[in-house]
Amino acid sequence: MKLTDQQIKDIKNQQSQENKTKRVVAAELENILYEAIPVLDHGFIRVIDYMGDDSSIVQAARVSYGKGTKKVSTDSGLIKYLMRHWHSTPFEMCEIKYHVKLPIFIARQWIRHRTANVNEYSARYSILDKEFYLPEPNHLAAQSKNNRQGRGDILQGEQAKKVLDLLKGDAERTYDNYENMLNERYDGSVIDESQIGLARELARMNLTLGTYTQWYWKTDLLNLMNFLRLRADHHAQYEIRAYADIMLDTLKRWVPITYEAFLDYRVGGTEVSSKGKKVLKKLISGDVIDLESSGLSKREWNELMEAFEIKDKTL
Amino acid sequence: MKLTDQQIKDIKNQQSQENKTKRVVAAELENILYEAIPVLDHGFIRVIDYMGDDSSIVQAARVSYGKGTKKVSTDSGLIKYLMRHWHSTPFEMCEIKYHVKLPIFIARQWIRHRTANVNEYSARYSILDKEFYLPEPNHLAAQSKNNRQGRGDILQGEQAKKVLDLLKGDAERTYDNYENMLNERYDGSVIDESQIGLARELARMNLTLGTYTQWYWKTDLLNLMNFLRLRADHHAQYEIRAYADIMLDTLKRWVPITYEAFLDYRVGGTEVSSKGKKVLKKLISGDVIDLESSGLSKREWNELMEAFEIKDKTL
Amino acid sequence: MKLTDQQIKDIKNQQSQENKTKRVVAAELENILYEAIPVLDHGFIRVIDYMGDDSSIVQAARVSYGKGTKKVSTDSGLIKYLMRHWHSTPFEMCEIKYHVKLPIFIARQWIRHRTANVNEYSARYSILDKEFYLPEPNHLAAQSKNNRQGRGDILQGEQAKKVLDLLKGDAERTYDNYENMLNERYDGSVIDESQIGLARELARMNLTLGTYTQWYWKTDLLNLMNFLRLRADHHAQYEIRAYADIMLDTLKRWVPITYEAFLDYRVGGTEVSSKGKKVLKKLISGDVIDLESSGLSKREWNELMEAFEIKDKTL
Amino acid sequence: MKLTDQQIKDIKNQQSQENKTKRVVAAELENILYEAIPVLDHGFIRVIDYMGDDSSIVQAARVSYGKGTKKVSTDSGLIKYLMRHWHSTPFEMCEIKYHVKLPIFIARQWIRHRTANVNEYSARYSILDKEFYLPEPNHLAAQSKNNRQGRGDILQGEQAKKVLDLLKGDAERTYDNYENMLNERYDGSVIDESQIGLARELARMNLTLGTYTQWYWKTDLLNLMNFLRLRADHHAQYEIRAYADIMLDTLKRWVPITYEAFLDYRVGGTEVSSKGKKVLKKLISGDVIDLESSGLSKREWNELMEAFEIKDKTL
Repeated sequence: MKLTDQQIKDIKNQQSQENKTKRVVAAELENILYEAIPVLDHGFIRVIDYMGDDSSIVQAARVSYGKGTKKVSTDSGLIKYLMRHWHSTPFEMCEIKYHVKLPIFIARQWIRHRTANVNEYSARYSILDKEFYLPEPNHLAAQSKNNRQGRGDILQGEQAKKVLDLLKGDAERTYDNYENMLNERYDGSVIDESQIGLARELARMNLTLGTYTQWYWKTDLLNLMNFLRLRADHHAQYEIRAYADIMLDTLKRWVPITYEAFLDYRVGGTEVSSKGKKVLKKLISGDVIDLESSGLSKREWNELMEAFEIKDKTL
Repeated sequence: MKLTDQQIKDIKNQQSQENKTKRVVAAELENILYEAIPVLDHGFIRVIDYMGDDSSIVQAARVSYGKGTKKVSTDSGLIKYLMRHWHSTPFEMCEIKYHVKLPIFIARQWIRHRTANVNEYSARYSILDKEFYLPEPNHLAAQSKNNRQGRGDILQGEQAKKVLDLLKGDAERTYDNYENMLNERYDGSVIDESQIGLARELARMNLTLGTYTQWYWKTDLLNLMNFLRLRADHHAQYEIRAYADIMLDTLKRWVPITYEAFLDYRVGGTEVSSKGKKVLKKLISGDVIDLESSGLSKREWNELMEAFEIKDKTL
Repeated sequence: MKLTDQQIKDIKNQQSQENKTKRVVAAELENILYEAIPVLDHGFIRVIDYMGDDSSIVQAARVSYGKGTKKVSTDSGLIKYLMRHWHSTPFEMCEIKYHVKLPIFIARQWIRHRTANVNEYSARYSILDKEFYLPEPNHLAAQSKNNRQGRGDILQGEQAKKVLDLLKGDAERTYDNYENMLNERYDGSVIDESQIGLARELARMNLTLGTYTQWYWKTDLLNLMNFLRLRADHHAQYEIRAYADIMLDTLKRWVPITYEAFLDYRVGGTEVSSKGKKVLKKLISGDVIDLESSGLSKREWNELMEAFEIKDKTL
Repeated sequence: MKLTDQQIKDIKNQQSQENKTKRVVAAELENILYEAIPVLDHGFIRVIDYMGDDSSIVQAARVSYGKGTKKVSTDSGLIKYLMRHWHSTPFEMCEIKYHVKLPIFIARQWIRHRTANVNEYSARYSILDKEFYLPEPNHLAAQSKNNRQGRGDILQGEQAKKVLDLLKGDAERTYDNYENMLNERYDGSVIDESQIGLARELARMNLTLGTYTQWYWKTDLLNLMNFLRLRADHHAQYEIRAYADIMLDTLKRWVPITYEAFLDYRVGGTEVSSKGKKVLKKLISGDVIDLESSGLSKREWNELMEAFEIKDKTL
């Protein structure tokens, strides 16, 4: 991640603000406000603004005249209860806004979460930065053999090198030609004064999906957790998980009680189907149970055994 | 509007907070934060929290690293441009949260705006306050003769008195019987220790739609303006307009530049249909035009003439 | 439920339609299209329209050029996979529209599900029907002692009779006065030709929350299941569950494969928290475990033991 | 646009369906159901399914027991009234589903309309088709001089040729390298049996934004019109307008009465601000008015004069 001097100055300038407010404040989150936290090779996440804290959830759930917080222990109990029983609306009472720089192919995955507000940098109006994603060697994975949309082993040696060369070469060439078609460099300088440039809204189509874009993204706490549950999961593509992991940390700073409940009930929890429950009940009673009589598919059976780390009993 | 001592204390307690923040602050809005502003006979509106100000709109529209504001005049120009051309997403980057006390029949109208977050006081869990709406004499309107969903003349004398008596009598009787069925008074005291009370989730059905409820309601600036455009309009029911008028004032305190643009382009503006444009063009050229040749319906014609205060030329 | 002759005729008229279409058709659902299925004492549910069937989910998941269905067994496997892994978007590709008559206090609970389209009968414009909900004796429950928002024992004898009398008396009186204030009967006849009536938008506030309203309600399959998971649950208020139960049957007729997966993974399934998983693992291994060392709250412990029907082992 | 034999067969197969239904049917839309209507060089739009017709809007607005339609003239009047006064919910009662093939940079613009359901072809799971967008010579526009996000003159001669060569060359090279990294051709054949291929979720980042993707896209009539108002407008990028124009035709086939009202009130209509109204009023009265005294900005003034085709009077 590389920021220009002006960008660094703009960020420092915001961080030096010291305003007075009667609103509730999340001190830990204030500490990193506006900071550009690096993600991948050129990306970042910045927390720009937020509304509310743990006490706001309690306040709304009680439709109270005062602050939510009576005692931390009482509030914690209520937040855990709300999380466990899917009482979702109180969590919608907190809001957060991020500034994110990310590769376009990840932005396309991200945007599928529709319950958020987005302002993306417009490549109809401006020129995109000359930055594109190149994976670290240890993330250069082969297609998985048994999971049609996952990753398998890491590519090695010559093949790894070749792939990186191709990615780099194509990204650079297409970006150079983007500039050539625009008749303008990324820094705004004109290439050939005697010529006119192709419209930006057209030229951008020559860029690869590894090019970085950026946006302001704002969502409420409930939808942030829905996003993180899917995108911080080990099934998620590594590149979006890298962002989700940073966001998990901002969640912890912002609403620590909610964060604990989220880890316990959502991230670390498991759903068990009706048929799965029957299997677990038998295992607890010490009964013999096998795949065939369980009514589960092979895949479901394996997922259940994995979730509860069951080995020998399954025969 | 009547607050209990505890409620007054809770509000004062919040207002005395003085937190430091690096977030942007809307000073005029801070001045009235948490305050219960009276609406109708027992209702109120309180601003509980907010995120962003005018500069946040500019910041997001530019996907900027710093604060939105360069110069007020530049920012104002951009905000007006965005409003005029329906660039809606930057306005979604600001958020506001209200605590509202309002009659149930108004709550039912309000909730039709779905793009908001709501936590309503639960009458499954608690007992509703003994407060119901009774219109001021000058709002006791008859059904309109020519507008099937509007109001006409104000009821007078005996009939007005009779209506108010009926509303008051029925509200009080049904509330008393609500308490009787619950076997519990609004203050929590038990009526008859030897008896059990009807479930709250059932007893509440005996209340009239004039009974006050309350909720936390949070929305973004764009959807707030959509709400206000419809509900602060003179076609809106008076009772919801009373709330919208107060909210217009909070809008002005929060985002004064956006407020000006909103008044100019939305509240005070008009839409002209394709056919209506042809009529106006002819009028400007000094041509003769009449209803028949205009292609407009009688109703559309009248709406157009009214919007542009045209009289004599129309013959 | 009482329909007028005209309403019966209108329904029969629609049911007699026999249109040709190239769209997919759900035969079992067509059988009950437009039919007013009774709910509670005066309510009903009617399926008015639908889009798609089980094959549409598969079709969208595969972004296919043809129909989704290759073989029922393959499709069923894919639908179960999507449900299990919370791949929600393919379920959004089916849509259903209901016409519902329901008491206002239930409508207020229902409307909290915001991801739906609603057109409610306007009491600003028209007069509401003279129909209000009175519970069956076996649903006349007392407030629960241990669940602050639930129901306990059924009221008996004199007290039950008294409650029903109060509900009936107040509903009738407030409705009569509603007519008096309107100066108009529910059938449109004027009461006193020499008088004008109160505006409908005001008079309606005199009605109780037990009065029936009606609306058109349209949602996609994903959000219908979210609704049913909460509202067909035994924690839901009986009166809304009565509607949800009928809707479960329409779900089965419409998308039978999805219905099966929904019962297995959602309705009959359970979520187990991170801490709960540890408890179950120990129980499966035959280890001793108790509340104290589990890290669960008393309430969580009980919910877990209940979900897996565990008794003796817990000591 | 090029379809495989299997795709053509799948489409024909669906078109040959002849199902019976009691639902309302839009005959003109049935005529083109499933058909792949070409857009740009390789894209298409297919209508896959729909719910409701013009009568459904009226039916919902009236919360009626029967079909909406009484008389076409009455229905038309109501639909125009609803459109004029922004009564939006009845239009949400109709739903349509498209299958669209489109360049990725257009898909990214399209997806900003969030109130829709989307299933996109997954390049994590499958290989994208070898198809990329190359503009027709008459759409190869230069960047506009006076509109920072628009198009200006058409590129000519050598420069046009050079741009097309660059676009074509880069698209082909990056696609070839995409195959090389995958170790697999677009038709599924393996390139080098001794090697493993890069994960699809990574390799796709080498493709340019001109590559075609495809999705199922479903929305309600209200949101379809919101989309078309912005995207069929002459300010919209040509490439998305090409899709919007085809969709306007499907709108006409589906709900012809709504289509007429949409053209009159939205597409052909204009909004006039509060200040703009004052200018028009003066022009109608024959008063002299100029930019300075109008309170309008230069830009607003020009937009107003253009909308009402006013020339000489403005001095």
